[in-house]
Amino acid sequence: MKIICTKSNLSKGVSIVSKAVPSKTTMPILECILIDASTDVIKLTANDMELGIETSIDGEIVERGIIALNAKIFSEIVRKLPDNEIVIETQGDSQVLITCEKAKFNIAAQPGDEFSYLPAVEKDDFITVSEFTLKEVIRQTIFSIADSDTNKMMTGELFEIEDNILKVVSLDGHRISIRKIELKDSYSPKKVIVPGKTLQEISKIIGGEAEADVDISFTRNHIVFEFDRTVVVSRLIEGEYFRIDQMLSSDYETKVRINKRELLDCIDRATLLIKEGDKKPIIIDIKDESMEFKIKSQIGSMDEEIMCIKEGKDLLIGFNPKFLIDALRVIDDEEVDLYFMNAKAPLFIKDEEQSYIYLILPVNFNAAI
Amino acid sequence: MKIICTKSNLSKGVSIVSKAVPSKTTMPILECILIDASTDVIKLTANDMELGIETSIDGEIVERGIIALNAKIFSEIVRKLPDNEIVIETQGDSQVLITCEKAKFNIAAQPGDEFSYLPAVEKDDFITVSEFTLKEVIRQTIFSIADSDTNKMMTGELFEIEDNILKVVSLDGHRISIRKIELKDSYSPKKVIVPGKTLQEISKIIGGEAEADVDISFTRNHIVFEFDRTVVVSRLIEGEYFRIDQMLSSDYETKVRINKRELLDCIDRATLLIKEGDKKPIIIDIKDESMEFKIKSQIGSMDEEIMCIKEGKDLLIGFNPKFLIDALRVIDDEEVDLYFMNAKAPLFIKDEEQSYIYLILPVNFNAAI
Repeated sequence: MKIICTKSNLSKGVSIVSKAVPSKTTMPILECILIDASTDVIKLTANDMELGIETSIDGEIVERGIIALNAKIFSEIVRKLPDNEIVIETQGDSQVLITCEKAKFNIAAQPGDEFSYLPAVEKDDFITVSEFTLKEVIRQTIFSIADSDTNKMMTGELFEIEDNILKVVSLDGHRISIRKIELKDSYSPKKVIVPGKTLQEISKIIGGEAEADVDISFTRNHIVFEFDRTVVVSRLIEGEYFRIDQMLSSDYETKVRINKRELLDCIDRATLLIKEGDKKPIIIDIKDESMEFKIKSQIGSMDEEIMCIKEGKDLLIGFNPKFLIDALRVIDDEEVDLYFMNAKAPLFIKDEEQSYIYLILPVNFNAAI
Repeated sequence: MKIICTKSNLSKGVSIVSKAVPSKTTMPILECILIDASTDVIKLTANDMELGIETSIDGEIVERGIIALNAKIFSEIVRKLPDNEIVIETQGDSQVLITCEKAKFNIAAQPGDEFSYLPAVEKDDFITVSEFTLKEVIRQTIFSIADSDTNKMMTGELFEIEDNILKVVSLDGHRISIRKIELKDSYSPKKVIVPGKTLQEISKIIGGEAEADVDISFTRNHIVFEFDRTVVVSRLIEGEYFRIDQMLSSDYETKVRINKRELLDCIDRATLLIKEGDKKPIIIDIKDESMEFKIKSQIGSMDEEIMCIKEGKDLLIGFNPKFLIDALRVIDDEEVDLYFMNAKAPLFIKDEEQSYIYLILPVNFNAAI
């Protein structure tokens, strides 16, 4: 194989597919990027068996062929080469010569036939969203997936399509995040659980422009994202997602409208009195026209009042401040509405159209604080 | 004590003195910032017994007094408060109330009298350099001090003044960095060893403007930097610095003039074939009109040629590439001159006026590479 392409093209492609290279693995071939120049296009592929990414780049194919190179070494070499044309040429099956201007690198390679290609997926059933929208819904929900694998289902997000509505849900046992967006077309119903890691990586790769589209298609076990010159294939998480509808209620006893920035800054300030791992709640005392926030720890105490518009009963309630911060950070509205039932029932932060709903469970606290 | 000052003034002052707060200590008082409003100015001070910093800030003193606050908590609170006036008021000897708009923080405090003040230093003997120059000479020498404390002397830098010349020297056993600058005035001779940590912190605090001056004064055991509204006092390292003059020679057998950027990029590229901790040398083959760089490791091999202007003998010599990179990075010249004697003797990188001299020892290598 011998190919020639510019540093910038190669560099962009390598950075995209590198997102699917596992950081730890016992199989050296999975740490590789496959360069496939066996047809008329140069394709780069990486695949950790859960998530696979393929992208094609412009360049000249002098001699057709396929080779796999260690992703880390290859990407570092590409990054540090001068901004000029790069020639990649195999020297037998186990060596590759990379040349750029007067710099010559010789590194080990692996034959391409050991590489696991992406599963072939028929794209008969797909929905279309803009890169911007996809990036936004991921950002606005991904923070409430669970980190650990103890409950696999919680490490993913529900993608549910009904008519022209895409609903994305994540939850971790203490909170639920829901985002609904309107699609341009209507589609047949679909319901899949996408691994959080896939969404995090997708979010890094897509540009986020409102004019660029992403086609999302589904098979029994996979979800496929296609955009620009890139295809991302990910396994789905198997099983039935949590039934969240019964947890959502539109009743409330107390409703508060408050400036989001003031609220977020206040809670953010309060957290500096809490050492990591310490589970001190922030206590919110809702009275007419004001919310008072209090926190007390070994470090000291904090007290702050914010003006608000209140409907309904007074309330004293406690929360893990991090959960409030996570939700408030991703809401773009200037004013937010908070709906409370009582000190034991979840808080709902949602807009009128319910395009977002953030449910957060309260925590017990010592009322004598 | 009760003082009022703006967030921005307080924040700037706290960030300056925080550089002298030790990250680890068994004495809680050393982790504090002292607020001294006992006279007509508000002074902030931190002191880890080696390095002490004092700065004064604008503000209103409502009630005179002194108090010490935990630096980390205090600076985080200041950072997160709204951009407005901040009131700091003692509540007895062990509590402080910090108020800004409607936010109120109560934190523990310590009485000021336990705090170690900066040593009083008479400023009768001082030199003046610009902030820019001081920052530059530190940047251009600090990389070759030794990290570890096995040889205390190597963790500092020599500051030597003779007439109107300030010479700054650092060395770590493998290399020596020397910078000479011309001062505006002539001074009586001085020779002190300044701890590297002091210089690193100074370098972060000073603005680096060419018009702003730093007064540097000396006592038997201390060096004092004064600039803007800040005073930095540091202990000196005791002892006699290494005699480096006998190591400096102006003889050479091979002289090379080469483009600095090309040289640096080439060596930088070569290092990606070396894993951390691996001591592979870069081999330089100097012939007429070109230098060839070679490196070989388990990862692969690299080979690159750069055009140069050579005088004298051909030479094959090996170096730790990191040492070459460190020196080349801080040289601002477009072209650099390298002076070699033989494969066992140090390389000198220096300009004609010898305003900088970088001496780097070569390493042995297997000539069969």
